[in-house]
Amino acid sequence: MLKVFICGGSGYTGSELLRILALHDEVEIVGVTSEKSAGMKVSELFPAFFIYKKLKFESLNTEAIKNRADVYFLALPHGKSQQVAAELLQAGKKVIDLSADFRIKDVRIYEQWYKTQHLFPELLKEAVYGLPEIYREKIKKARLIANPGCYPTSVILPLYPFLKKKLIDTSTIIVDSCSGVSGAGRKADITLSYCEVNEDFRAYNVAKHRHTPEIEQEVGFASGSSITIDFTTHLLPLNRGILSTIYASMKKDLSTAEALEILKEQYQNEPFIQIMPEGELPSMKYVRGTNYCYIGAVVNPRTKRLILVSAIDNLVKGASGQAVQNMNIMFGIDEAKALRSLALSP
Amino acid sequence: MLKVFICGGSGYTGSELLRILALHDEVEIVGVTSEKSAGMKVSELFPAFFIYKKLKFESLNTEAIKNRADVYFLALPHGKSQQVAAELLQAGKKVIDLSADFRIKDVRIYEQWYKTQHLFPELLKEAVYGLPEIYREKIKKARLIANPGCYPTSVILPLYPFLKKKLIDTSTIIVDSCSGVSGAGRKADITLSYCEVNEDFRAYNVAKHRHTPEIEQEVGFASGSSITIDFTTHLLPLNRGILSTIYASMKKDLSTAEALEILKEQYQNEPFIQIMPEGELPSMKYVRGTNYCYIGAVVNPRTKRLILVSAIDNLVKGASGQAVQNMNIMFGIDEAKALRSLALSP
Amino acid sequence: MLKVFICGGSGYTGSELLRILALHDEVEIVGVTSEKSAGMKVSELFPAFFIYKKLKFESLNTEAIKNRADVYFLALPHGKSQQVAAELLQAGKKVIDLSADFRIKDVRIYEQWYKTQHLFPELLKEAVYGLPEIYREKIKKARLIANPGCYPTSVILPLYPFLKKKLIDTSTIIVDSCSGVSGAGRKADITLSYCEVNEDFRAYNVAKHRHTPEIEQEVGFASGSSITIDFTTHLLPLNRGILSTIYASMKKDLSTAEALEILKEQYQNEPFIQIMPEGELPSMKYVRGTNYCYIGAVVNPRTKRLILVSAIDNLVKGASGQAVQNMNIMFGIDEAKALRSLALSP
Amino acid sequence: MLKVFICGGSGYTGSELLRILALHDEVEIVGVTSEKSAGMKVSELFPAFFIYKKLKFESLNTEAIKNRADVYFLALPHGKSQQVAAELLQAGKKVIDLSADFRIKDVRIYEQWYKTQHLFPELLKEAVYGLPEIYREKIKKARLIANPGCYPTSVILPLYPFLKKKLIDTSTIIVDSCSGVSGAGRKADITLSYCEVNEDFRAYNVAKHRHTPEIEQEVGFASGSSITIDFTTHLLPLNRGILSTIYASMKKDLSTAEALEILKEQYQNEPFIQIMPEGELPSMKYVRGTNYCYIGAVVNPRTKRLILVSAIDNLVKGASGQAVQNMNIMFGIDEAKALRSLALSP
Repeated sequence: MLKVFICGGSGYTGSELLRILALHDEVEIVGVTSEKSAGMKVSELFPAFFIYKKLKFESLNTEAIKNRADVYFLALPHGKSQQVAAELLQAGKKVIDLSADFRIKDVRIYEQWYKTQHLFPELLKEAVYGLPEIYREKIKKARLIANPGCYPTSVILPLYPFLKKKLIDTSTIIVDSCSGVSGAGRKADITLSYCEVNEDFRAYNVAKHRHTPEIEQEVGFASGSSITIDFTTHLLPLNRGILSTIYASMKKDLSTAEALEILKEQYQNEPFIQIMPEGELPSMKYVRGTNYCYIGAVVNPRTKRLILVSAIDNLVKGASGQAVQNMNIMFGIDEAKALRSLALSP
Repeated sequence: MLKVFICGGSGYTGSELLRILALHDEVEIVGVTSEKSAGMKVSELFPAFFIYKKLKFESLNTEAIKNRADVYFLALPHGKSQQVAAELLQAGKKVIDLSADFRIKDVRIYEQWYKTQHLFPELLKEAVYGLPEIYREKIKKARLIANPGCYPTSVILPLYPFLKKKLIDTSTIIVDSCSGVSGAGRKADITLSYCEVNEDFRAYNVAKHRHTPEIEQEVGFASGSSITIDFTTHLLPLNRGILSTIYASMKKDLSTAEALEILKEQYQNEPFIQIMPEGELPSMKYVRGTNYCYIGAVVNPRTKRLILVSAIDNLVKGASGQAVQNMNIMFGIDEAKALRSLALSP
Repeated sequence: MLKVFICGGSGYTGSELLRILALHDEVEIVGVTSEKSAGMKVSELFPAFFIYKKLKFESLNTEAIKNRADVYFLALPHGKSQQVAAELLQAGKKVIDLSADFRIKDVRIYEQWYKTQHLFPELLKEAVYGLPEIYREKIKKARLIANPGCYPTSVILPLYPFLKKKLIDTSTIIVDSCSGVSGAGRKADITLSYCEVNEDFRAYNVAKHRHTPEIEQEVGFASGSSITIDFTTHLLPLNRGILSTIYASMKKDLSTAEALEILKEQYQNEPFIQIMPEGELPSMKYVRGTNYCYIGAVVNPRTKRLILVSAIDNLVKGASGQAVQNMNIMFGIDEAKALRSLALSP
Repeated sequence: MLKVFICGGSGYTGSELLRILALHDEVEIVGVTSEKSAGMKVSELFPAFFIYKKLKFESLNTEAIKNRADVYFLALPHGKSQQVAAELLQAGKKVIDLSADFRIKDVRIYEQWYKTQHLFPELLKEAVYGLPEIYREKIKKARLIANPGCYPTSVILPLYPFLKKKLIDTSTIIVDSCSGVSGAGRKADITLSYCEVNEDFRAYNVAKHRHTPEIEQEVGFASGSSITIDFTTHLLPLNRGILSTIYASMKKDLSTAEALEILKEQYQNEPFIQIMPEGELPSMKYVRGTNYCYIGAVVNPRTKRLILVSAIDNLVKGASGQAVQNMNIMFGIDEAKALRSLALSP
């Protein structure tokens, strides 16, 4: 049994790890931290997770926990993960960091967008961006995984094959994404209270969302060039899910069928990617509670633009499910273990 | 123009007064307070209320405001209203208190359920319970209105004629009520955050909700006896509305048609009460955004119990709309002024 | 591998069987019917269930299917199941019927409430009511399971130990239940369209819901007497879940702690029953997507009434999950196989 | 009193006319049609509209109704409005058509996108596109109003001043819009049933939505050139509202402040347009139930693209409210009469 430790277990990505790992028969959760709920049983804070009757939240003390597990999931705020990750790596442990701390390779860009100093630039080089569909081989050997952001996962996967094949004009990429409320985290915040979100829809962080440089980095790597995009995010009145609509002018005329073929070819052996048939597009409900990413494509014959639509569950493929997928890969476990649930539908 | 002042304008009952009074052509809002938002324009905190471009939230200072208006709405927390009401009455003003401070006539019961001392028991005697369908004549002459609670409004109105006519066994009353989330107020509270309420439904404060003694007092007055009820409240995943289902054994066999006739007779001239035809029951959407109360009745022929169902908008007939109705009555204005909107449907 | 056939796979209970059984490693789905979608692949109608790429809906022909599987789930409308069940039993197969056709032991009561003739009264005697917590031993040997209704499951489980111990006055039972919309089935119906249900809440079928006689039968069996109840159902604006609030006067004074002790004692070894600690009550979100039933209790010290609150997912413990639980029991498979998922939360 | 007739009163735009006109004290509704509900009282089909106790739905017979009113609202399906409008105009009446039949000036484009023949091309020339902010003077004298589509209203208003001033590259316009479910109409359709829409989000009609040519026509008129756009629509899990996010490259560098200034200048005297301050964007809840259009702007300094965000209520400013606004203008009534309600918030 692989021993697993969760740092930051009372937020939505932490609790999602608890939910997913409950079905994983090759791991044992040996500890979980929460500053606010330290001392409480997991089953008290989350009665839905009644099986964790003995596991108690503890305060995070890296020194005290560094010898208790084989792999550590860090579901901590950005800026806080860095230090914990560094100390656990120092102790010879493997770390899967769900924060943004190790995603951006260029320290200056990280510091500019996250307004925080990066104390471990040398670890940035080592960290592997944990998108298995692109970096699986590196993940197998990684000690430190920078688990991708939710929006970037939904944007990079559909764009990747078109960029690699240099089929689109990279100066024309516009990404319009919508996320459910769990993406904002579990917190007391009046703007996230039920009555303020329900029956509402709004754009936020327009032209300044922190996932912008992460997307730009990865689509840049794929295309071999520097890319600047427009990325707009909206808040949907629902719990889970991201749907991204991506627009780009094509360098070469493709039909919708050809665009879909490119996606199918790229992802034909991927366990978690589903390409929609021509004429159909992903719906958020296809991925609710699952680790799947559904992708559809339309070429508008009137404007010659490629329109890609993708759907993921922001807490699963967009966070904790992908983290478990990375863990499975790192430890030679069946990659889909504990991640096979179909969408809760309706 | 009647000069109106709102104490506590940044919560949901306060903002609802701002919304309703925007359509009232015989009043002018001369001031509004908010401790948290003091100094902000109303239109800044609530961009939806753009017409209030000049009105600024101010900190509450009774001394400073007591000469600025004719009538004061107090949308303050219970315990806080008492003092403000007393000082405004002292200054010769009329007060409509939306808190619970003047609803319970028996000081001991108030103090026991609200865990707060009552400093003005003599005002309790003077205060008129602001349910126009029962106390209209007293309201006309009142200086101090105890505006009813949302749940009590939805429960007292349907039960009232049956109690007055002594048709039900008062020891058997069970009230099962469900409210939208705005009933909990506008606040940063993790248990009221979107993801915790959406797709969820739960009972709360079972056997100890503070509206229990208010309901018991008024149904007791109606029946001329002391009544103890079971009152259970649930939180609905929607913004506005209360639906109450009320059960009671009958002292005398009535048919559904006879029960409906009793309701129609009682409320035939009431501008805000609608009785459903036999075979149909109220739906919350009939009252969304309105001051109406819809009531339906079924007699279960197998158990001989009377089942009453009522629907109101908790922020309108359950709070601010009823407060404006009371103001209209107190000042000889058309009772339905600013309150004629039909339900926003869908 | 156990061969499983699903009759009626395009409704919500049928599709829920497809979802749950996708994680069951001891069964193989050999066929699924749908009249409306005959000829379509399951993965076409339900893109979320992409793994069923080969399985096609077929038209129901009992003669043609009776030799293809070991066990047949009937997710058909009541009245239609009877004949199919009879023919499959005749062919020596085991049948789990999710309709109401075999739940009511008294033919006259069935015919009166369901307005349909019962053609196989002799099978009614043989049919086992599939509530494992009460009838597990009989289920082990059953050929024909009458899988319980969703509301009855949520009502019978909390009441059962109190009735068996004769602790409550059976003439005083009032059940107030609320269900998510999936309980009404998958169909084009204007009253179930999004805009008519969203932000709404309404009571329906008051004093005449067809689950009334099913509940009365089972609580009657538990108490050894004939019981008539008031049972009111409401439609909640959410997809899944039932929460029932149950009121009854007690024959003997119990404290809340004692009431909870009775529940714990009854269900201590049950894999799918969770009893809430004193002071807490079930929330629908604890059971979303799961086979669990959460139960809480409060004794109102002022009225001496026992108030029970239970929560289930109407499609899982209230239908398809319980059906799979029954199948597991019938075939000697681990009872919780494929049913261990924790709640999708948030 | 102006006599008003509504053709097609049982859908959502028809019922919204009934809701809005209930507060209009200079009009009288003399008739309303519905094929499905002919013979029913309006208050029976819509208990929320209890004030219409005498008004009955009738079957549409143009001959029989043409002398009963001064102005006719046609809330009929496209293709059906044409004939009715022509006959009413022939009878000397004024017509406000909420369908698409008279919006597209080029018959071939209409026929190509709507797959219906246009029988009255000469009326197309006369019809005035009923967007008061652009065509107010023409509306004053019009006999036939082509009331704008919901999406086009939300797109044309923000783009208009930038196009008129030739500030954007018209080949780069991308519109990403999201609508609440009422936009799809009131009908029994399984894909619009509650469980299929709730907790879901999906794109639909990508690159082929019928509002595309209407938007292209009007932005083309504004810019004096032919424009082809990408227009993507999504279905939001909420009742009312459209939020459009519009992207375009600028011909001339503008700051966000300058872009906002252009909007403010254009719309400074408009009663129903609100421009957001810099740093803030419209939220759907600001317009719920109202005739207002809120517009915000951001210039992305990294891509030099202009991003416009607008919010309207699809049933009010996007349909019936705008229709009443047009009626008020046509008949010399205060333009905002019956349209002053602030947003129902929360």
